[in-house]
Amino acid sequence: MFPLSALFATARRRILPTPTSLRLRLHHPNLFSTQPPPPSIEYTLSHPIYMIWGANTGVGKTLVSTGLASSFLLSPPSLSLPPTRKFIYLKPVQTGFPSDSDSRFVYNKFSQFFLHGIKNPSFTVLASNHVLKASISAADSVLTRGSDGVPVVETGEGGELESGFRDLGLYEESKLGEDGAVAAELICKTMYGWREAVSAHLAAEREGAVVDDLEVLEMLKRGLGIGLEGRGGCEGSGESGDNVGVFSLVETAGGVASPGPSGSLQCDLYRPFRLPAILVGDGRLGGISSTISAYESLKLRGYDVVAVVFEDHGLVNEVPLLSYLRNRVPVLVLPPIPEDMSDTLMEWFDEAQTVFGSLKETMILAYIQRIERLHSMPKMAQDIFWWPFTQHKLVPEEAVTIIDSRCGENFAVPKVLKNNFITQQFDACASWWTQGPDLTLQVILFFLITYKDSWKLTMWFQIELARDMGYAAARFGHVMFPENVHEPALECAELLLEGVGKGWASRTFFSDNGSTAIEIALKMAFRKFLFDNGMLLDLPKAKTGDRCIELKVLALRGSYHGDTLGAMEAQAPSSYTGFLQQPWYTGRGLFLDPPTAFMDNGVWKLSLPERIHPENVKVEDMAFRLRDELFCKSRDGSSLAACYSSYISQALSLHSRMSEYSHIGALIIEPVIQGSGGMLMVDPLFQRVLVEECQRRKIPVIFDEVFTGFWRLGVESAAELLCCQPDIACFAKLMTGGIVPLAATLATDAVFNAFVGDSKLQALLHGHSYTAHALGCTAAAKSIKWFKESKTNINLISEGSLLRELWDMDLVQQISLLRTVDRVVALGTLCALELRAEGSNAGYASLFARSLLQNLREDGIYARPLGNVIYLMCGPCTSPRTCRQLLEKLYRRLEEFGRANENLKSSQV
Amino acid sequence: MFPLSALFATARRRILPTPTSLRLRLHHPNLFSTQPPPPSIEYTLSHPIYMIWGANTGVGKTLVSTGLASSFLLSPPSLSLPPTRKFIYLKPVQTGFPSDSDSRFVYNKFSQFFLHGIKNPSFTVLASNHVLKASISAADSVLTRGSDGVPVVETGEGGELESGFRDLGLYEESKLGEDGAVAAELICKTMYGWREAVSAHLAAEREGAVVDDLEVLEMLKRGLGIGLEGRGGCEGSGESGDNVGVFSLVETAGGVASPGPSGSLQCDLYRPFRLPAILVGDGRLGGISSTISAYESLKLRGYDVVAVVFEDHGLVNEVPLLSYLRNRVPVLVLPPIPEDMSDTLMEWFDEAQTVFGSLKETMILAYIQRIERLHSMPKMAQDIFWWPFTQHKLVPEEAVTIIDSRCGENFAVPKVLKNNFITQQFDACASWWTQGPDLTLQVILFFLITYKDSWKLTMWFQIELARDMGYAAARFGHVMFPENVHEPALECAELLLEGVGKGWASRTFFSDNGSTAIEIALKMAFRKFLFDNGMLLDLPKAKTGDRCIELKVLALRGSYHGDTLGAMEAQAPSSYTGFLQQPWYTGRGLFLDPPTAFMDNGVWKLSLPERIHPENVKVEDMAFRLRDELFCKSRDGSSLAACYSSYISQALSLHSRMSEYSHIGALIIEPVIQGSGGMLMVDPLFQRVLVEECQRRKIPVIFDEVFTGFWRLGVESAAELLCCQPDIACFAKLMTGGIVPLAATLATDAVFNAFVGDSKLQALLHGHSYTAHALGCTAAAKSIKWFKESKTNINLISEGSLLRELWDMDLVQQISLLRTVDRVVALGTLCALELRAEGSNAGYASLFARSLLQNLREDGIYARPLGNVIYLMCGPCTSPRTCRQLLEKLYRRLEEFGRANENLKSSQV
Repeated sequence: MFPLSALFATARRRILPTPTSLRLRLHHPNLFSTQPPPPSIEYTLSHPIYMIWGANTGVGKTLVSTGLASSFLLSPPSLSLPPTRKFIYLKPVQTGFPSDSDSRFVYNKFSQFFLHGIKNPSFTVLASNHVLKASISAADSVLTRGSDGVPVVETGEGGELESGFRDLGLYEESKLGEDGAVAAELICKTMYGWREAVSAHLAAEREGAVVDDLEVLEMLKRGLGIGLEGRGGCEGSGESGDNVGVFSLVETAGGVASPGPSGSLQCDLYRPFRLPAILVGDGRLGGISSTISAYESLKLRGYDVVAVVFEDHGLVNEVPLLSYLRNRVPVLVLPPIPEDMSDTLMEWFDEAQTVFGSLKETMILAYIQRIERLHSMPKMAQDIFWWPFTQHKLVPEEAVTIIDSRCGENFAVPKVLKNNFITQQFDACASWWTQGPDLTLQVILFFLITYKDSWKLTMWFQIELARDMGYAAARFGHVMFPENVHEPALECAELLLEGVGKGWASRTFFSDNGSTAIEIALKMAFRKFLFDNGMLLDLPKAKTGDRCIELKVLALRGSYHGDTLGAMEAQAPSSYTGFLQQPWYTGRGLFLDPPTAFMDNGVWKLSLPERIHPENVKVEDMAFRLRDELFCKSRDGSSLAACYSSYISQALSLHSRMSEYSHIGALIIEPVIQGSGGMLMVDPLFQRVLVEECQRRKIPVIFDEVFTGFWRLGVESAAELLCCQPDIACFAKLMTGGIVPLAATLATDAVFNAFVGDSKLQALLHGHSYTAHALGCTAAAKSIKWFKESKTNINLISEGSLLRELWDMDLVQQISLLRTVDRVVALGTLCALELRAEGSNAGYASLFARSLLQNLREDGIYARPLGNVIYLMCGPCTSPRTCRQLLEKLYRRLEEFGRANENLKSSQV
Repeated sequence: MFPLSALFATARRRILPTPTSLRLRLHHPNLFSTQPPPPSIEYTLSHPIYMIWGANTGVGKTLVSTGLASSFLLSPPSLSLPPTRKFIYLKPVQTGFPSDSDSRFVYNKFSQFFLHGIKNPSFTVLASNHVLKASISAADSVLTRGSDGVPVVETGEGGELESGFRDLGLYEESKLGEDGAVAAELICKTMYGWREAVSAHLAAEREGAVVDDLEVLEMLKRGLGIGLEGRGGCEGSGESGDNVGVFSLVETAGGVASPGPSGSLQCDLYRPFRLPAILVGDGRLGGISSTISAYESLKLRGYDVVAVVFEDHGLVNEVPLLSYLRNRVPVLVLPPIPEDMSDTLMEWFDEAQTVFGSLKETMILAYIQRIERLHSMPKMAQDIFWWPFTQHKLVPEEAVTIIDSRCGENFAVPKVLKNNFITQQFDACASWWTQGPDLTLQVILFFLITYKDSWKLTMWFQIELARDMGYAAARFGHVMFPENVHEPALECAELLLEGVGKGWASRTFFSDNGSTAIEIALKMAFRKFLFDNGMLLDLPKAKTGDRCIELKVLALRGSYHGDTLGAMEAQAPSSYTGFLQQPWYTGRGLFLDPPTAFMDNGVWKLSLPERIHPENVKVEDMAFRLRDELFCKSRDGSSLAACYSSYISQALSLHSRMSEYSHIGALIIEPVIQGSGGMLMVDPLFQRVLVEECQRRKIPVIFDEVFTGFWRLGVESAAELLCCQPDIACFAKLMTGGIVPLAATLATDAVFNAFVGDSKLQALLHGHSYTAHALGCTAAAKSIKWFKESKTNINLISEGSLLRELWDMDLVQQISLLRTVDRVVALGTLCALELRAEGSNAGYASLFARSLLQNLREDGIYARPLGNVIYLMCGPCTSPRTCRQLLEKLYRRLEEFGRANENLKSSQV
């Protein structure tokens, strides 16, 4: 065990990469100690937006873009195409600039094709091309060479930015066709240009013009807002039935996994938007393979590919591609592109018109289907789902949240019923406390002996997990576990025993969820108790039913251990246990009232149960300036510790006096925080004393770490906070990083030995079909390592034994001062508070917090309450900056909420 | 509902693809109605075997092969390299032959390099090149042109095979170096050659020489046996410490996903072997992307990539590649390859020597680490796992099975402690009844409008599932469910209600496993019962604990509903429920003895419980020639039905007379087959009568279809076999196709409405963290569709409502005639039998079947017994041919087992 002083040191330590001898070139040194906030993603659903990807470089993405622009702007009006149209072409990353400029190519070719194809145009098209920023070297080249007479509008004096870019106001436009009102518009934009015709990361590095991923995303977000002018931007109505038909296309650079300017792979870089995709395949020899692999890389990042299109090279590559896609994704074949470089391609465009027409139709149809599906989802969900812990009558259709995807800690939430936008909400309930993946587009230095330079690496937990899930499914699927061994289960068990079970556990029993893990733990504990107390010997003689021993658990009021009957029996009566909910519940426990701890008016305080009399306790034992004083081992000698000890002893004596046959066969506690019970912090001193009292009496101790395990409370196992060890502990939730269900019950060898014997009937006859399933174990192994390695989790301090303080403690204190707030607990990834409430406004069924939560959703925070208890929960790798932003928003909304309630009260007076 | 007569029609119908107007060209018409057996995979672990893949075509795979051959054969002896060595180079698929021949290239270049590099060779190398088969067109070309003077040994008269190939005995060899004893050997082999330099599938098609995937695998298996001569082949000792160092390398053609000769992608085609991989990347512009995508395609098929190597094009592609691989897979860079075609490459090989040296070392090291890990796994598993349902004391180290991977229905099992081979075992316990994926390398016709021709499509469930798992993880991970909706959950719920819930269910409640699904079902049923019987009104007044109503279930003896306490309470006392196992079990049910059905001595018979007196029953009601007569609705009018009805009524009346407060609040049954209870078939007539009796009394009916659902018994829902509908039903296991845990409890609207009210406290307060997790729902949606579409499940008959008979009924009858067999049940994917046993040889804890099971494993069948009950279980898409093979092996082993037991008995007499 590490010293407590180190445990709660709040100093922020820079985590430096190991080979320090290498030269560092840091573009954003600040990102090193604090991560950047996640990008805010928002885009309209009122018109189709697509991203176009290439199976390789040079497969003709820009030709497809041009063809689509022409097809969209020049087709006769139809149901899906209103007469007035806008086509927006965005090229975020352009290398080889200005000689290569895809946006200029689209602009030029479209114009040529318009003039070539339409002899007597009856309408006018306004076409423009705009290049926003270029590396100094590329910009200089434009300025010197004049770039074919394109006017350069020097915006902001073409100022050289810190990052090595110039704001390049390169702009050209032309009016095509009749000199009348503009009926159609082609807007082409390049966002960033670099001079060298190499991969963007290399050009950016060599030209000293690196742009951050977040900036690219921010720029792209603005680009996607084009076409919405006058419709109020993201806040506008944006009906899909608008009379302006808009179509946006974003063209990537190179292949799907070609690095962007920061070195992040483009398929990762653009993932937060998860725009529907078109894949330009490869029709050459070997092109089947590269097209399929590129498709798989897109799928492995959660993209939906709507069509595959490629140039015919006479190899009928479409046949195996269609086979592979099982005819579900259209594969379109473009006529061979003339090899003669001087060809204007006009005839080719003519020939390819029908293909582009069907491609455009496919894309529009897929867009319409997507929107229709999104519109129908809330109603369908209401009709056919049966949500857990939900009174359906209280959920109107408009309150149903569609979750289109997750990206790190954020949900992408389409607001189809309201404003037809996709927006982002931070998953502040960590999806029932399971989540670990962070989307930080982390920037970490990476060293290479060969390259002898620094390298920025985007590490993205969710994407790596996804690849691992694919691998585990392909390698194992699921395989039978008993008497067998497979690599993921073995690795997972090793990591559990070296991690959360370190120092005490030696066996891993797998199951599916917290509740099953608890049932298993109880069976283990009871057997151990019978074994230790010599009660096993008499058992085989007794007939079934003829039971003269009754076993009970010792547990704390307010604790919650799961929803299956066995787990429920171990909790005190509550809203969850009534006859209406579980007619079989009897409550097979001795339930003690625990002393709780919380911050109130800026100070950490204890609240003692009635039976512990505060007059016996010193005042200095009851209030603390710092939270971490609560964990201090020196409290063991306090008068309060003695009070706790006698309170527990009395309760146990009373119980054993009550019945000869009833025994306390196990202690079960949630260490430090009781989750479902309302995020109550139990005095750690009390739990430590409790564990000692039980172990002295040979009562096996179970730690229910389903909620608290894996850094939830800032340490890998909450047992570390209590400074004591259980005989059995249960883990689930965060164990797999929040991806699939898996649970583990760890036990000591002494517990295991109570099940060893000559007969199978002595073994633990409990197991679930998917015991130790490969996907779960793979995810768990990955997550356990991810969270505890400083390379991947930059929140680690204290030699990797502790997370730094994620919640700004000043702000937490401010919140505790609010009149509307009763108590606050901030620890590890959790920041919880109880709203001051009375009567039916308090308790689990309360709807008191509803308006507050609604407002938080407007702020992009998806929280779910426990009655009048509100909490924010992040992952072990979430940046403190993100947490601070959440807390600031919460603070403002709490102030507002308090004022509203006071106004309500005063108006009622 | 479809008519029963159709349901049990045994006629095998050809499932024809829909657009029949297109011209068909079938190479293997037989594969259409019956699938081929899965290939038997077996290869040695006694030396390194690698497969070499390309990120694209033309990236230099063959140069790497040559370099590795040289490095391996010509390095000085070392710890890992004994003085005598063999390098085996295999090229399964060669197009452009004979002009292109990679095996010849390796042979030639190696020879040149040997002569060029070693001035005074002190040892002799024997090098050879051998081409086995070629398309007639390619073979003719060899025969006419003489192929540069290479002698053609006409084996078997160079006969033209039916498949369009000639056995081409093209063989050349040379002795290099000193004319002494051969110290090293290079063996190069091409398996199949085609003339056209296009993708193999195209060449095969055009040259009329298509080879089946299974034949390629069989040929490869033989190739991998080279080097083991004199060591007894697969049965040999094959110690890795042999004094002959062997190294095998298999070179693929084109890119990783380039089609093989049948059209199957090579990464799919070779997956059954799952050989460790080397990926030759692409160093050109765009090469980062194609290398990463190729890597991901390999991972998505469960391959382990040991190193990436590529040619330097000055673009430092290794930097982002190493970033992407997070430094865990070595990336090696080869010097630029001379562009001059006349270059002998000798200098290049010299220059690249060190790279090849490290590549070889990496490969040997990875091999050694793999073998060491495999050796240590059984012991580690014994030490740190706690297996469910397993008496650890009875499992010696050598009995622990390592499962290296799954491929369809088969495990790949390394036998490191025995003979150092990887062999294959059919997962005949369907990994606790969860499995659905089949590896059949199915051949299905595929139609294309553009190509106007047939196409063979390898559809592989596991690989598609793996891709979907990657996609779901990347798109969603897991997201909060209550009050939300996401696509996978919605699609899954829709499919459940249209499938297994069709006609009755309207709500889907998700949970994690069968046991939780049952606990939820019980809570639903009890509430419904209270609601229907007007008991809800009084409840809110009663205090907790102050309960005047006791609710019980009606259930059948021998049924099993899960391991959590609530589910256990619904089963009659058994081995699983004793005080030793679950001290809290009381058995809250009225448990009826069910009549069972089975085949005995070739006839289907019924066995009635004691309380039903056979004298009241007609003889013709008690025995049946065909199993399906048992399901006949006409039995409803039999005297037996009346007996059943009165037996049930009496039991219910007796119970209600016993106590005023105790009510039967639910009926719970496993329809047709009681799984864990010993694969007992309950008379369907009895269950139908039971359901009717309960529904008449307003007792909600729960079907526990955790085991029986999703085609396990030959129909999508076993309720179809009973011809009646429940109020609630539970599903799990096969629902996800056997990949991750997920369960669903379906219910009628009437059940749901008992939970609708104004307060949250009236809602069903039960839920698990990963409720409706995206991976599970995605897998379930995929699997449900896969099993019920005739395109993907060719076992479907009767318009997709029924699986054809998978078990050969004659053989089943033969088995039932064996003296050692007590009873047999074959239905759907299940074929179970009970061994005749007495005393401790019978029952759950029996070890009676041990030797039989051991022998079955030798036959490549991994079965797990339920005491003296043995069963084989396949998936819904497993071919009847595979089932027949399993059954034949079982039959032989049963005969043997019977003889051994009789000998034992007679020797004891």
